[in-house]
Amino acid sequence: MIRHLLSGADLDADTATQILDTAAEMATVAGREVKKLPALRGRTVVNLFYEDSTRTRISFEAAAKRLSADVINFSAKGSSVTKGESLKDTALTLQAMGADAVVVRHPASGAPHRLAHWVDGSVVNAGDGTHEHPTQALLDAYTMRSRLGRLAGLSVAVVGDVLHSRVARSNVLLLSTLGAKVTLVGPPTLIPVDIAAALAPGTGVSYDLDSVLPGSDVVMMLRVQRERMNDSYFPSAREYSRRYGLDGPRMRRLPEHAIVMHPGPMNRGMEITPEVADSPRSTIVEQVANGVSVRMAVLYLLLGGNNR
Amino acid sequence: MIRHLLSGADLDADTATQILDTAAEMATVAGREVKKLPALRGRTVVNLFYEDSTRTRISFEAAAKRLSADVINFSAKGSSVTKGESLKDTALTLQAMGADAVVVRHPASGAPHRLAHWVDGSVVNAGDGTHEHPTQALLDAYTMRSRLGRLAGLSVAVVGDVLHSRVARSNVLLLSTLGAKVTLVGPPTLIPVDIAAALAPGTGVSYDLDSVLPGSDVVMMLRVQRERMNDSYFPSAREYSRRYGLDGPRMRRLPEHAIVMHPGPMNRGMEITPEVADSPRSTIVEQVANGVSVRMAVLYLLLGGNNR
Amino acid sequence: MIRHLLSGADLDADTATQILDTAAEMATVAGREVKKLPALRGRTVVNLFYEDSTRTRISFEAAAKRLSADVINFSAKGSSVTKGESLKDTALTLQAMGADAVVVRHPASGAPHRLAHWVDGSVVNAGDGTHEHPTQALLDAYTMRSRLGRLAGLSVAVVGDVLHSRVARSNVLLLSTLGAKVTLVGPPTLIPVDIAAALAPGTGVSYDLDSVLPGSDVVMMLRVQRERMNDSYFPSAREYSRRYGLDGPRMRRLPEHAIVMHPGPMNRGMEITPEVADSPRSTIVEQVANGVSVRMAVLYLLLGGNNR
Repeated sequence: MIRHLLSGADLDADTATQILDTAAEMATVAGREVKKLPALRGRTVVNLFYEDSTRTRISFEAAAKRLSADVINFSAKGSSVTKGESLKDTALTLQAMGADAVVVRHPASGAPHRLAHWVDGSVVNAGDGTHEHPTQALLDAYTMRSRLGRLAGLSVAVVGDVLHSRVARSNVLLLSTLGAKVTLVGPPTLIPVDIAAALAPGTGVSYDLDSVLPGSDVVMMLRVQRERMNDSYFPSAREYSRRYGLDGPRMRRLPEHAIVMHPGPMNRGMEITPEVADSPRSTIVEQVANGVSVRMAVLYLLLGGNNR
Repeated sequence: MIRHLLSGADLDADTATQILDTAAEMATVAGREVKKLPALRGRTVVNLFYEDSTRTRISFEAAAKRLSADVINFSAKGSSVTKGESLKDTALTLQAMGADAVVVRHPASGAPHRLAHWVDGSVVNAGDGTHEHPTQALLDAYTMRSRLGRLAGLSVAVVGDVLHSRVARSNVLLLSTLGAKVTLVGPPTLIPVDIAAALAPGTGVSYDLDSVLPGSDVVMMLRVQRERMNDSYFPSAREYSRRYGLDGPRMRRLPEHAIVMHPGPMNRGMEITPEVADSPRSTIVEQVANGVSVRMAVLYLLLGGNNR
Repeated sequence: MIRHLLSGADLDADTATQILDTAAEMATVAGREVKKLPALRGRTVVNLFYEDSTRTRISFEAAAKRLSADVINFSAKGSSVTKGESLKDTALTLQAMGADAVVVRHPASGAPHRLAHWVDGSVVNAGDGTHEHPTQALLDAYTMRSRLGRLAGLSVAVVGDVLHSRVARSNVLLLSTLGAKVTLVGPPTLIPVDIAAALAPGTGVSYDLDSVLPGSDVVMMLRVQRERMNDSYFPSAREYSRRYGLDGPRMRRLPEHAIVMHPGPMNRGMEITPEVADSPRSTIVEQVANGVSVRMAVLYLLLGGNNR
């Protein structure tokens, strides 16, 4: 196993498959009378969040607690960080306090990589700037495999503000490794011509959602970040929604077996309509549940796995 | 047992008594060497707080942990809620993450009821707007029964800003069910003429605290919310305190056995003087302790009880 | 054992040594497969923080969890405290909820002492104003003893804004008790002439760091608090750093065996240069690790020790 999980690119096909298989075992725990496993008893997981992200933090917290780890939440707002402490000193402090794993969310791309140089324990990237969010890619892959039976050969359309999406970036890297074919879809200003090639060979680009849908097994809608909608390169909300939002008629252009994904939280009415979000094709709630299983698997393999 | 606890009106006399009896058993745990019970091991309780209320949150957290449940605190400030996520999507997310119970505090009356439609787990209303706060009513009933030996036939004066008080509303509903006689006392602007009848038959109204005290077994002082004191219908602070504040001389108009209650936190010197708050009649600290026992009983019966 | 830990002056030599010896036993737990001890199972530790101090809070939280206690974090910001509740009522509330220990950080000097009058449980001072921070002094003493083999007879230079430093105050009190010789070093405006004598007999004062270093076994750099640097009695940052900052050349004036300490978080480049902070003489990261062991020992002895 790897020691850190920083990028979708850290995962070769075998390691990624091992995580997905372990997550499937973890998911069976949820059906039991007692949902806790003793696997990480006495281990400490620190959630080091430099940005608010209650959803991701809770998912990791639930995963760690279900494995009987102790969880310490460290919101960097109002902490010594704001007194000017460096990321390095924070890292050394957490390690000295006995953190076996640090789950880090940071606004700066690359911060988790720097952190990993300084600590002996494991670092899990829970989102760094516009860069990566590898556990999101793993839970997305888990969801596709669980719904459609396989990953190799799937056609996956990733739709929206690809340029700024760490979810898109991590998904492209991981899905390519696992043999799926990704097409990035969105306005030209949000998909620079060279981004697809730079990410992974075989990744396609399209500016026309309607033409991509009939050939897609999976359509993954990205969240529109409202703070970006005033930027000059961003289409108007109405224009964006009209051209790249997924509504009922558009959803019916998909093959019958195809699924609709979204990392949440959704802007209902913007990138996705309630009809689509609540349809049986939608895997949005499953993705959340799978997120806990996948994070259990990641923490288990990094901290308690066969290489320790 | 009921599945959710949303309102004092959800509780018939048998269910309410079952909760109070269970709370009495839970209270015995506090005297033991090891205060933890394994009853809810492997269960997850989420505290979903859209308003700050450290006191109520901590009480539920202590109750859940004493039953060995895992507790996840979700302060909705700075969360995806503020990114525009709907209450429904938040509910579905928490459920997907494996929340067995959601304890919710929300500024909007009725929010816990809506939440209960969307989740399979149990919802406990920890205060919604000016509407209800049913575990507060249960801990108040527990305290009266514990101090005075019974609830049926007790005369209870509820004093203050009844109009905006979820504590008053839940207490009137529950106390009526359990056979106590409630008199609402306060300035006319804060007790609309029809509120008593609308809440429960037999509930009386008075604008004169001094005349009510001699016939009361219990006087429950409501907290004055400072943010309301600038409203036009609110008397001046001095006038309010003079007419409806409980001080030493007024306390001595009560029968010898009568008790003084307050849900906390108190405005000492406003609705209650230190002499009264710290007197042997005061049950204010007991109410806090009883709150943990009652919340243990509610979580135990909703999550681990005989209907699951 | 004592019941509370409020001041370095609470500790006689025997009690302090008992804590340091217990901490050494606790430290061995960190090397085991399962790092948890069952000693405080069923006990509740409340972290009551009226000031942000993530570092100290996490250290106590990790210590309590490693002893299997339940931990409840109470950040007084946005709590009923801000609704005007008194410290006394907060204390009574926490006690009624079953807090066995309250770890308190407060901006007002003396607040933990007042708290201790009102609760039956144990109070641990985690920093009160400019007054005291006794667990910091204990972890510093532990670190010196661990590195240098003894405390009696050591020469310790405490350097910086002594006037406002609770770390300095608690260290002077404890180190004197344990037989070390302390010299306070800093600008005259930050070390009033009578402070040394008032703290402990035998404490020296110097305004010249360079002359003190050759005779010191330990040099303890205090954190410069940026908010004080605009005060009229504070030298300019550049002047301060030039005269009282510890850099490489100055470090090399120390005896070969001497160590450099800092309570963190550091202002690298202000009171200490990176060369010094990261040198083998620096115990800064060890201090953090020792902090968890010392706080385990304090909680264990106060809550589970031989006098209960």
